[in-house]
Amino acid sequence: MANILGIAASSGIAIAKAFRLEHPEYEITKRSISDTDAELAKLDAALEISKTELEAIKERTLQEMGAKKAEIFESHLLILNDPELISPVKDKIATEMVNAEFALNEVAAQFVTMFENMKSTYLQERAADMRDVSKRVLNHLMGVNFQSPAEIREEVVIIAEDLTPSDTAQLDRNFVKGFTTNIGGRTSHSAIMARSLEIPAVVGTKEVMEVIQNGDIVIVDGLEGNVIVNPDEATLAEYRAKGAAYEAQVTEWRKLRDEVTVSKDGVHVELAANIGTPNDVAGVLDNGGEGVGLYRTEFLYMGRDELPSEDVQFNAYKTVLEKMAGKPVVVRTLDIGGDKELPYLVLPKEMNPFLGFRAIRLCLDRQDIFRTQLRALLRASVYGDLRIMFPMIATLMEFREAKAVLVEEKEKLVAEGVAVSDNIQLGIMVEIPSTAVLADQFAKEVDFFSIGTNDLIQYTMAADRMNERVSYLYQPYNPSILRLVKMVIDAAHKEGKWTGMCGEMAGDATAIPLLLGLGLDEFSMSASSILPARSQLAKLSKADMQELAAKALDMQTAEQVVELVQAIHA
Amino acid sequence: MANILGIAASSGIAIAKAFRLEHPEYEITKRSISDTDAELAKLDAALEISKTELEAIKERTLQEMGAKKAEIFESHLLILNDPELISPVKDKIATEMVNAEFALNEVAAQFVTMFENMKSTYLQERAADMRDVSKRVLNHLMGVNFQSPAEIREEVVIIAEDLTPSDTAQLDRNFVKGFTTNIGGRTSHSAIMARSLEIPAVVGTKEVMEVIQNGDIVIVDGLEGNVIVNPDEATLAEYRAKGAAYEAQVTEWRKLRDEVTVSKDGVHVELAANIGTPNDVAGVLDNGGEGVGLYRTEFLYMGRDELPSEDVQFNAYKTVLEKMAGKPVVVRTLDIGGDKELPYLVLPKEMNPFLGFRAIRLCLDRQDIFRTQLRALLRASVYGDLRIMFPMIATLMEFREAKAVLVEEKEKLVAEGVAVSDNIQLGIMVEIPSTAVLADQFAKEVDFFSIGTNDLIQYTMAADRMNERVSYLYQPYNPSILRLVKMVIDAAHKEGKWTGMCGEMAGDATAIPLLLGLGLDEFSMSASSILPARSQLAKLSKADMQELAAKALDMQTAEQVVELVQAIHA
Repeated sequence: MANILGIAASSGIAIAKAFRLEHPEYEITKRSISDTDAELAKLDAALEISKTELEAIKERTLQEMGAKKAEIFESHLLILNDPELISPVKDKIATEMVNAEFALNEVAAQFVTMFENMKSTYLQERAADMRDVSKRVLNHLMGVNFQSPAEIREEVVIIAEDLTPSDTAQLDRNFVKGFTTNIGGRTSHSAIMARSLEIPAVVGTKEVMEVIQNGDIVIVDGLEGNVIVNPDEATLAEYRAKGAAYEAQVTEWRKLRDEVTVSKDGVHVELAANIGTPNDVAGVLDNGGEGVGLYRTEFLYMGRDELPSEDVQFNAYKTVLEKMAGKPVVVRTLDIGGDKELPYLVLPKEMNPFLGFRAIRLCLDRQDIFRTQLRALLRASVYGDLRIMFPMIATLMEFREAKAVLVEEKEKLVAEGVAVSDNIQLGIMVEIPSTAVLADQFAKEVDFFSIGTNDLIQYTMAADRMNERVSYLYQPYNPSILRLVKMVIDAAHKEGKWTGMCGEMAGDATAIPLLLGLGLDEFSMSASSILPARSQLAKLSKADMQELAAKALDMQTAEQVVELVQAIHA
Repeated sequence: MANILGIAASSGIAIAKAFRLEHPEYEITKRSISDTDAELAKLDAALEISKTELEAIKERTLQEMGAKKAEIFESHLLILNDPELISPVKDKIATEMVNAEFALNEVAAQFVTMFENMKSTYLQERAADMRDVSKRVLNHLMGVNFQSPAEIREEVVIIAEDLTPSDTAQLDRNFVKGFTTNIGGRTSHSAIMARSLEIPAVVGTKEVMEVIQNGDIVIVDGLEGNVIVNPDEATLAEYRAKGAAYEAQVTEWRKLRDEVTVSKDGVHVELAANIGTPNDVAGVLDNGGEGVGLYRTEFLYMGRDELPSEDVQFNAYKTVLEKMAGKPVVVRTLDIGGDKELPYLVLPKEMNPFLGFRAIRLCLDRQDIFRTQLRALLRASVYGDLRIMFPMIATLMEFREAKAVLVEEKEKLVAEGVAVSDNIQLGIMVEIPSTAVLADQFAKEVDFFSIGTNDLIQYTMAADRMNERVSYLYQPYNPSILRLVKMVIDAAHKEGKWTGMCGEMAGDATAIPLLLGLGLDEFSMSASSILPARSQLAKLSKADMQELAAKALDMQTAEQVVELVQAIHA
């Protein structure tokens, strides 16, 4: 029996036989060829079969996991159809008279290196796609067959170095009970997919591939981040019980789907979800979401060659509003720039993109982009309870300017005879310290606040949340953060407005007692967190939590706050 | 008569004949040579004469402007002595049989491009040095003579595209009455040099080189950022009067040198200076500084190949304390990392260096560096009123950790029999929003606060202050900033501690009334701002300014605050 520690990436307990997912390793050597036509035909055949596979995977992902998840395979298909990749490979074969594998591998490697050296996260991710796609084609060129995860027909736990997007898309939940990998973190692609598929997973173990053999019995404890190999009977029994308890809890949570969210002392708060695409709405409803607290519109702008038209946007917004059937939908206007880049929108390189030209700063400058989005939103407003929210507002002048643009577009539409709702709430993200500190002034002019804790924490602590060397400063429970949250909530209530939160903190079990106590009105989180949150809130008294929050505000350190909250569970 | 607008870079009025400072333009062509020895000798001769010139300029700068300003010429000399530059030039001459000008120009251009592409500001500035130095040597190689600014022997106003460090160092204040340039801003090198030399200057005009001819009569209005070419008699008279009034004001300011700083209603505040090296102390005393509010110790670590030893640091700190003769000296511990790099301290590249691993974050990790500095400070503490300040403190845990290291080193020194003062005040920079918001908790443990507005503003507004696209968000008068300042001052006073400010805001005439009203105890600024500030404060009633500040705290925008303050002058 061996015990391997890793990162808990997706909740639940899986117990099954190990299946090692190994990508075939082979060396690609340069060979001179004489029949270039035959070699080109070989390349075309490998490309075709790869495309067919990808179409199938994409279709299946679309059905089972939604459009957002399927997008990655759309990108893979785009790569395979991209003459910028394929032409140089064919040229190389024809002019240098070399074998197709060698030519493809060389050209793909150049692209990978190029992408990896880009500063943009977006382009760095393209390197992974390029690697994944070229490997697929190379497998076919080399005539290598390996057992695809799609072909698994018995209950297993997958053991892998890492899972590629193609791997995860092919997992069949009926057979794949869980997985564990050597590399990755809580926000790596495979971890996100695991949560979406609701498969228990432990990632970043560094050694499962070294320790576990095919056929070993493996327990994946996605609750604690533990992997146990060939457990003894007592351990097996213990984990079966733990798994059953977790399943029971999930079942209990599911019963809360159609319940309203109330605290033990009967106070209602709203539990909403963060979404990225219209396809995510199904998950929101399935998890009993009372609204959409954050619709990130960036995905509309990604994975395409030009700005999305007003109609493309209108259709997306309309779909979400209609599917939500009158429940509130808070749409955040475009939050692009900084580290989030679009290939067709060339922005100057910045030394500190997180402190740079992005979101509303960019939209107020590029009003063509902003006005198109606002028109699409205004047109969609009659299909539900639309609320519009501007990101990265730092000053009242910015809010007034953005609002003025919205009012102008509304007047134009009305003049054109287009129906526009008269009850669109207009709010802002509070994610910049200046706005939190001045919330009393903002509250006079906005309809609502939504606190974006991810950014608010990083700016308040002056620590890049992507930078591991300062990650110890990403402190949601620092009393300074709680004080800013309180300032915002109190300011809103004084003016009869509401405050939501759409950062990761809103769905965190340690934060929820504090946020209830601070008076937060709306909690927006990933859909899968809604039912656990509803269950937790039903056990908390708001009056007690107000006392707890008051104590937390007077603490000196984040560590003390965490201790304080954990004591209520003890 | 023509009127050209620019940026007021250094106060005062200069009226004199125009002297166009033009760097000779020539084309460098590639020529084959046969006698490589002769060509190498030619290069050596040009290098030698350049070095002799630079030694002289460096010496003169050291005498007239202090060690910090002279450092740049030390860098230039290092470049000329650097085999990494010179060897490839000589190799090129010898192996490619080309002329020295061509070889030097090629190699220097490669370095310039390389430096310019670096992310680090430090290395980007090395590109300017490389350009300046290679131009000097090329002039000698080309046998080009141009009138050096050092040779000017009549009263002139210099007109230039830009002034290089070498140019400004050679200006003789007896003859050069002012200057104006096409490019540059308030913080560009030439602007800083102008203030240091107390020569009126207007920079960033975009067109003085196109409009002004040698011999034109030019007025440089460094107060308003105006350049007037060939003024009529009425204008000349007007500006002579304005210049005389300014001179009279300067004379009045100088009378305040030995006065204490008191408001109209008799409240004392302390006016201190920011310094970078021991040589800057003379300017502090000459301008009536009541202390050093910020001694930036970074310069001790720059322009060298390894970390400064404990003794090198001890001597610098001791010198400053002795020269300040018992007046308080606040020393900030090393604030390196982020954009400020040291060649001998290799740090990982960061996506957002301003939100990264720097200052106390780095010092708590690299305790070898930190402890050496603290030991040097502790040993120097017996020579005056030393106060130690930690930069970039975001949490109380960081302060406690840093303090623990200091206490440990103190105990070690005492055990070794070394004399250490028992009255060293220990404070922190407040430049991160979390610390301002939690100032009441910090005030229980620190001896003083010093608000670093440059960073505090950039983090609070989430806007990189070096990024022009978001420069509109660098708002010292945003009510949110004033509220944070108030939180810090009130928190300190409640615990009987004092609060200073060492950002640019402390010396700003618009900020001073507000800061007096908010209760700031110590204002630390560039030495040349002290006397104007003392003069301004004598005319302000603290009681009135308290009312003004209370109004400002309740304003909605920075624009309203500026209006409010300007109304008191009207």
